[in-house]
Amino acid sequence: MSDILSIKDRTAIVGIGETKFAKHLEPSEKELACIAIKSALDDAGIHPSEVNALSSYTMESTEEVEIARNLGMGNITFFSQIHYGGGAGCGCVLHVAMAVATGQADVGVAWRSRKRGSGARPWATVGARLHDNWKYTRPYGLVRPVDEISLLTRRYMHEYGATREHLCNVAMAVRKHANNNPNAIMYERTLSRDEYMSARWISEPLCLFDNCLETDGALACVIVRADRAKDTLQKPVYLHAASQGFGPQHQTMTNYHCEDPLLGPSWATSARLWSLSDIKPADIKVAQLYDAFSPLIPLSLEGYGFCERGEGAAFTENGAIEIGGRLPVNTSGGGMSEAYVHGFNLINEGVRQMRGTSTNQVTGADSCLVTSGEGVPTGALILRT
Amino acid sequence: MSDILSIKDRTAIVGIGETKFAKHLEPSEKELACIAIKSALDDAGIHPSEVNALSSYTMESTEEVEIARNLGMGNITFFSQIHYGGGAGCGCVLHVAMAVATGQADVGVAWRSRKRGSGARPWATVGARLHDNWKYTRPYGLVRPVDEISLLTRRYMHEYGATREHLCNVAMAVRKHANNNPNAIMYERTLSRDEYMSARWISEPLCLFDNCLETDGALACVIVRADRAKDTLQKPVYLHAASQGFGPQHQTMTNYHCEDPLLGPSWATSARLWSLSDIKPADIKVAQLYDAFSPLIPLSLEGYGFCERGEGAAFTENGAIEIGGRLPVNTSGGGMSEAYVHGFNLINEGVRQMRGTSTNQVTGADSCLVTSGEGVPTGALILRT
Repeated sequence: MSDILSIKDRTAIVGIGETKFAKHLEPSEKELACIAIKSALDDAGIHPSEVNALSSYTMESTEEVEIARNLGMGNITFFSQIHYGGGAGCGCVLHVAMAVATGQADVGVAWRSRKRGSGARPWATVGARLHDNWKYTRPYGLVRPVDEISLLTRRYMHEYGATREHLCNVAMAVRKHANNNPNAIMYERTLSRDEYMSARWISEPLCLFDNCLETDGALACVIVRADRAKDTLQKPVYLHAASQGFGPQHQTMTNYHCEDPLLGPSWATSARLWSLSDIKPADIKVAQLYDAFSPLIPLSLEGYGFCERGEGAAFTENGAIEIGGRLPVNTSGGGMSEAYVHGFNLINEGVRQMRGTSTNQVTGADSCLVTSGEGVPTGALILRT
Repeated sequence: MSDILSIKDRTAIVGIGETKFAKHLEPSEKELACIAIKSALDDAGIHPSEVNALSSYTMESTEEVEIARNLGMGNITFFSQIHYGGGAGCGCVLHVAMAVATGQADVGVAWRSRKRGSGARPWATVGARLHDNWKYTRPYGLVRPVDEISLLTRRYMHEYGATREHLCNVAMAVRKHANNNPNAIMYERTLSRDEYMSARWISEPLCLFDNCLETDGALACVIVRADRAKDTLQKPVYLHAASQGFGPQHQTMTNYHCEDPLLGPSWATSARLWSLSDIKPADIKVAQLYDAFSPLIPLSLEGYGFCERGEGAAFTENGAIEIGGRLPVNTSGGGMSEAYVHGFNLINEGVRQMRGTSTNQVTGADSCLVTSGEGVPTGALILRT
């Protein structure tokens, strides 16, 4: 291992930007992407002409040359895309950080722009043929991501005694956080346990409030080397460690045929992540965990080592994932109550927590775990002050 | 710049693999991909279970989980894709090298599998709408990549006096190399200047022999850190430097509206590449230059600094790009005479030259430039012994 060039703490996020979030926004995905990126660069005090690394999702509709041309960038010397929808976000930050740390580029941008009316919902399309693993599940009614996760949730409930009360803990925690975030779709819109329990099924045992929002919006962040970070406008937020990951025999969200379906991609990501990190789960005081669906939070608490296997559901009891609890989670409201932009809002909220500027600031938090989609191949970041 | 963790010489390509090349192969793209990757791992003496980094083209039809599951890989901790078709190949090697050098992964694979009957020819499809820059060119007859490059070629001829004689020099040089490569589609199939000059137009001024082949096939290579490379079966081929790149105001191959259309993406790539390299153009004795179309070779000779602007055409005279000349180019036959698999065969031939195992071995070559598609956002590698 002596030959490794560790990028630990060698880069920092120095700018974040985002558009408004709403069920419908007028600008195109391309315009929203440019607005978010320009906003992130302004936040950092860096001109677009200095950007030379770009990373986004394969599902992103605006390609690199369009971003660069519309924003007036110069020579671009690194570009990457990451597959698997909501699994991509943290990996995009990692890719840019690697490029910047190793001198392949100097200023990098990661971003995601998404409109719910766009083509970025592949399950809503019908192909001439079902390919790969989809042919084993689509004909049997597993059509939407929520159908796939509902099966996984049943297995989790069966194996470990998780209940809807636990899922409600998650939904209410992130809603409370959103209630105090003026940028959140669910700002000031409260959720009671009764409302949760009487909500309609989306895919039993997952009800309306176990699902993320449907949001138009875009977000971006700017990454530079640590030495350059000292000269930007904001307090630098260092990337301490990061990893991507998925495990053996993985399919995607229909991962029911491997030896243990409850060992999702977070476990592979987590193993590498902590091996690269001086900060350990016990040190982390705030986390942004990908929450397209509520059960992903207890599964991620297990995968990333905040509790033992099977204990993630119980972890959510007694306000442990709310402000003031052991590990406040998704302090902006996350995908379920702030905005669902394929998880990128979790990255920006992680940065705000490290800057001390969250509307739900966790006192004394000096590191933050951010994760991307569990169920699909994923990624995670450890940010620190 | 002192804060940069240079990956120079920190990684090596230790395995290469490829399928047969033919106009039609029976196996699917997925099967071909797995065959090529397994072959590359066998070449290195590394078991698939050790692979934990994967990179390929966004146009690749087989996604990461399918590759990993079908080959029996373990935890994957890095994955990336690169856009822009033939512009991707060298970048994939760079991405994996960055991941391996920085300890995000340990053993990485880059690959490309392609069948000409597949969907990997986006210009052959008709969309409901023309988006982005395509709407300015498609309605006027610029439909295929060859149409786009033919306009660029006319401009090149007009500006610098390049002629069809020069393009014929390119076509005949790579054909001669293929004639001596038993794996090449054009093995033993010669090409005369008369045949070239009397061939049919594909898109004037580009004739049949200015175009790459149409090939089914797949290739892969395996990358590890330099310390591990000493323990593998083959002579390690070190990645000395690499870059991706495209310049300001770039479109794609229809890049006619920027200030100087003849300053393609190779110029942006080249600037970063040589700044990271101790090896300079004058030191390079063999090159594998992306050749979907013959004029890309003189343009690349200029872009990568082997001659001044406008001198690339004349550079091809007197056998300079053939074995025995100043800079033998595409010594396997390249995309025009060995196989066209989006340029990945150029990477594997670069490795063979550094191993000393090419069927057209360049005596004394201790470094090799490999480039990806010019015209589209691209990438380049400097390999060394």
